[in-house]
Order: sequence, then C-alpha cells, then structure tokens
Amino acid sequence: MSTGMPRTVCWAESAAGPVVRLIDQTLLPGELVLKDCCELEEVCEAIRVLRVRGAPAIGCAAALGVALAVHRSAAQTTADLLAVVEDASQELATTRPTAVNLFWALERMQQVAEGSGTLSPDEFCVALLREAQHIVADDVARCHRIGHYGAELIPDNADILTHCNAGALATAGYGTALGVIRAAHEQGKQIHVWVDETRPLLQGARLTAWELQREGIPYTLICDSAAASLMQRGRVDCVVIGADRIAGNGDVANKIGTYSVAVAAARHQVPFYVAAPFSTVDFDLACGDEIPIEERYPEEVAYVANRLTEPICPAPVNIYNPAFDVTPAELITGIITEAGVAYQPLASSLSELDSETSSSSSGSSS
Amino acid sequence: MSTGMPRTVCWAESAAGPVVRLIDQTLLPGELVLKDCCELEEVCEAIRVLRVRGAPAIGCAAALGVALAVHRSAAQTTADLLAVVEDASQELATTRPTAVNLFWALERMQQVAEGSGTLSPDEFCVALLREAQHIVADDVARCHRIGHYGAELIPDNADILTHCNAGALATAGYGTALGVIRAAHEQGKQIHVWVDETRPLLQGARLTAWELQREGIPYTLICDSAAASLMQRGRVDCVVIGADRIAGNGDVANKIGTYSVAVAAARHQVPFYVAAPFSTVDFDLACGDEIPIEERYPEEVAYVANRLTEPICPAPVNIYNPAFDVTPAELITGIITEAGVAYQPLASSLSELDSETSSSSSGSSS
Repeated sequence: MSTGMPRTVCWAESAAGPVVRLIDQTLLPGELVLKDCCELEEVCEAIRVLRVRGAPAIGCAAALGVALAVHRSAAQTTADLLAVVEDASQELATTRPTAVNLFWALERMQQVAEGSGTLSPDEFCVALLREAQHIVADDVARCHRIGHYGAELIPDNADILTHCNAGALATAGYGTALGVIRAAHEQGKQIHVWVDETRPLLQGARLTAWELQREGIPYTLICDSAAASLMQRGRVDCVVIGADRIAGNGDVANKIGTYSVAVAAARHQVPFYVAAPFSTVDFDLACGDEIPIEERYPEEVAYVANRLTEPICPAPVNIYNPAFDVTPAELITGIITEAGVAYQPLASSLSELDSETSSSSSGSSS
Repeated sequence: MSTGMPRTVCWAESAAGPVVRLIDQTLLPGELVLKDCCELEEVCEAIRVLRVRGAPAIGCAAALGVALAVHRSAAQTTADLLAVVEDASQELATTRPTAVNLFWALERMQQVAEGSGTLSPDEFCVALLREAQHIVADDVARCHRIGHYGAELIPDNADILTHCNAGALATAGYGTALGVIRAAHEQGKQIHVWVDETRPLLQGARLTAWELQREGIPYTLICDSAAASLMQRGRVDCVVIGADRIAGNGDVANKIGTYSVAVAAARHQVPFYVAAPFSTVDFDLACGDEIPIEERYPEEVAYVANRLTEPICPAPVNIYNPAFDVTPAELITGIITEAGVAYQPLASSLSELDSETSSSSSGSSS
C-alpha cells in the first residue's frame, strides 16, 4: 500500500468503541472517506453495496465483522458468544455469493471460535479479534508474495491490460493483479497499464486508475470494448487480472467482462494471468459451472453506478446485470499465487502448490 | 420507420426558409427534439457531435447539407454555385473520417453538380436538392431490401445480439441491422434482442433500446462486456450489426467493441452478420488496415457521453477513445446488402453482388 493511503479495511478503536473501519469505495475517486462500522449490520451493508469489494477484502471485512459482532455483543458466556459468531457468520454469508474468500474467512473464524469454547468470554473475544487481524495481515503478506512471483512474468517495457480492480482496494493492501504491477514497477521495469473502465460499476476507471495515479505508474483508461482491438493491433503484451473464485480445475470467476478479455487474449496469443491467493481457490468445486454467479440490480447499469439521476436507457427495466463471468482454465496462461505460479495443467499445478503451502505453513506461528 | 416517428434527417421548409431537419440524437432517450439546421455549419456541427450519426444517416445529412449550402447561397451564377458545392463538400468531408457513406454521398452530389453546369442557377439548385432527396429516399428503400434479405437468416425464437445503433436513427429510416430485426419481427417471428449498451456514447442503451421499445420488440440491455459470457452460455443465436466502412476484402469497420463481439462469436460458432448498403463498401481499399479510424475526445469516456459533471476517473486524461475497430472478413458469416447476402469468400461475393446491382440499376430512373 502506498504511503499515506489508509487501510482498505481494518479494526479501529473509535470514540464510540471498536469499529470496522473501511474506505468507502463507492465515493472514489471523488472523495476518500473512511467509514466506521459500529454494528455488524453496517459491515454487511458495506459489503452488499460495494463500499468494500474485491474477494480478499470481502474476506477481511467478514472476519472483522465477526470480531465486531462478538465485541459488541452483550452476551455473558462463551457459549452465548459462540452463538453470536454463528449468527454473524450466517448474516455475513448472505451478503455476496460469488467471492469464496468470504466463506473461507467465515470458516476460519468459526474454527477459532469452536476451538475457543473453553476460554473465558474476554479471552474468546481476544482470540476472535486476533484471528481476524491475522487474516488481514496475512492477506497483505500474500499479496506481496503474489507480486514477487508475478513481477517475474512481466517483461520490461510491457503494456499490461487489467480489468476491474484487483488492487490495494480489493485486498487488505498491495493488491493481487495490481500487486504484480506494483512489484514490476518497484523493480524499475518500465511498464504501462491499459485500464478497462469495467462497466457497470466502473471499478477500473474509479479505483484502478486512482491507485495507479497515486503510485505514478503510467496508465491509460479505455472502454471495456476497446481491449480486443488493442490486442489485435499488438498493443497488449499481457493481461493480469484478479479472481473472485477459482474452481479446482482452474476455471476462474471474475468481474463480468473478464471472459471477453480472455477470449481476445487467446486469439492474439497474449499471455493471460490470474493473480489470486489460495483463499480464492475453491477445491470443493470441480469446475466453473458450479460457481454461483451473482446477478445485481439493473439500476447499476441504467444509472451508471448511481451517478445519474436519469437513466441512460428509455426505461430502467429490461436489463440483465450479471456481476461475474467464468473464464475456462484452458484460456489461462498461469495463476499467480502466494506459493508460486500454477501453469497448465492448472488442476494438478494448483493442488501441488496448495499442498506445498499447507505443509510449509503447518507448525508455523503465523 | 415506425408510425409517428419523425424522419432521422430530411429537407424541410421552415419559416426561416429551407432547412436540414434532424432528430437531435444526443438528447435521446430523454427528449425527442428536432433540430433545424439553417446553415451548412450547423449540419457540420450536428455530424461532428453526433446529433446525427450512423454511416448511412451521415451520408444523407451530408447530401442535404450540400443542397442547403446551395439554396442558402447568394451566388448569382451556376459557376459560382458549383464553387459553393465544392466548398461545402470540402467542409463536410472534414467532419468524420471513418464512415465512407459521407464521401460516397458527397461524390454523388459533386457528380450531379458537375453534370448540371449548363443549367440555370435555379435549375441547378433544384437538381442538387433532387439528388439529395433521392439519396435519402433510396437509403430507406435499401434498408427495406436489407431487411428482406436479412430476415431470412433469423430463425424463429432467435436471441439476436446487436452492438451500437444501426437502426432507423442510423439511416434515413428502418435501419440496417435493426432493419433485419424489424423485418423478422414484422414477419411474425418471435425474437428477442440483446442490446449492447455501447460505451462510450451509449448508442445501444440510448438509441437501439429506444427504437425497440417503440416497436414493441422484446429486448434486454447489457453491458458490452457481458456479450461474450452470454454466448458462452448459449444464449445468443446470431449477431447482427451495421458498418461504417467495408473494405473490398470484406473487413468491416464498425463501432468500437464490434471486434470483441466478433471474436467471441467465432469462438462459440455464433453466426455474425453485418448489415449495410453498398454505399458503405469502399472497393478502393484492399483491406481494413487502410480504413482511417477516428479517435474521439477523452471526455466522452470520462463524463459518460456528457451526462456527468464529475469524471468517472481521477483525472480525465490518460484516456484512449477510438470510435471504431476493424473486424476481419474471416470472422464474418455474411454481409447483408440491398442486393442479397455476400458469403465467404466475401471479396468476390461482394463484387459480384455489386456488379449485379450496378447493371440492374443502370438505365433506371431511380
């Protein structure tokens, strides 16, 4: 994360007590406003309306949300606090269906809660907060490792295309796809980024351009539909994007439009990289067909991410607004994880890297 | 054109004298406003800022613009009026570079002017207006024939995807791609249209959706980047789009994003049709590489077609905004013209149809 940029999402002690503090990303790039969520419901709302978004950041917000529910609870016994964790998890789980990091983080919180049943209520609260903060800190560390492995794949003088925002704002910090780009830039490589604006909610124009501008990384904003034409003219050297859920076979759910970019990249032999931590990989799903795809409100399209008072179309009905699409593994050159890069065949490569990570981290205190 | 809809562009006698009257498409779908252009410069401005747009409609507006310049001229001799035609053509030719119908229409007006050098000034004016009005009426007739040939290609119960607006608003009436869709609908086929919103200027959301809504043709608006994902899921039976210029080999320049749709259609074996009159075919160009591609203002992207007061991005710079892209002939299933459908190989098929049209129309009074 660049100097002077607040954390995307973190725990904070406010005058009103403990809060989950997050950058309200719906107000960017116009205003940088921090929102303090005092209650679980505010965290849920923030996730639902995309004040905080991006699969890893959603996971962090959810973990902190569980800790907040526990800290704000009036429950007097550890057993009651366990029920609070259960209820909070259930509520958080309904916020958004596609990003698996949400469920991964809730599962981790649940496990710690279940393992803390013999602690005092105070100790239980501390344990839950410690786990949430560990998830947040760990996410930043993973992003740096992703950046490290990914930067090796970026040639000097590369024109890199990215879609949506997989940056510091989509994670606890540094970013996945933008982590790769940041790391390449930090290594002194001369790079330039093509930023897809990413309709309907314009995460590319609003958030990725904002991050790159702050970092001084050269970029050019384009309409999503210009990406294929740029590749046709040889002006894109590689694509790096994030992911919301990766199935066991390497199929990747990511922001709507990713598949379109992947198809064009394949046609023009442009390397197509996905950057994501293992918390995004859902080994329970055999393939991308099983990934639930969120459909969102037509108004996001009609009123251009809530920025218009009149719709862009004759009636704000007859709109189909899927938030994600699925890119099949066959179109992906490599998946850049915190444990290294998974290449084809992705299924075996992913599980190999996963088992290496699991075995190397077992027994460590982190 | 549906009942009650004014002509996209026409000649009219106003209280202020003769005018070129056109629907100000920048105000759609909010308001249906007719703009009377009293001077050539107003016609040029209308073309430049897309009050009137769409390759065939631009050709019609240019022809009427030349007639207007002549009618509004104070020139007393036919020789001076010839110079007025020359000057008007030069001015109109600078408005937009890609749509070849503009140059085609100016060439036709120039030819009539040159062939009318022996007429009186009054007769000269009449001859020029007659030619312009013929170009307009002929365009509507061509669109109906395109609709006739194209509708045969649309299966019953088809889901048709279109990009940008190639409708009544892009022509003198009825439309090219939307002419095909209208004709299929008029034949009683149950069809449904996926409408790409078409960033940056949203011609799909603003204009195509508006036309389809007026006609009662079922449609659903989507973000451009959702098209490929719909094809992946088998929800698109064919694509029909218009064209701004077609090279002799069948390469097609059309609104930015068309190429992206074509690449996805090819991957999913979805038939990809281009609907355009022969006035859009530029046999002088061997291939699409030679088509000049207009680059437009970054503000169109940043301020969402002039609908925002604050830009969607941190700074309205660093934006690349090409207005068109080129789809290579190999990705095109067929080009639907007023003389029939050109199939692969497009180059020979197009010239064959062209020579048939030219020979059948030679000697006709139209």
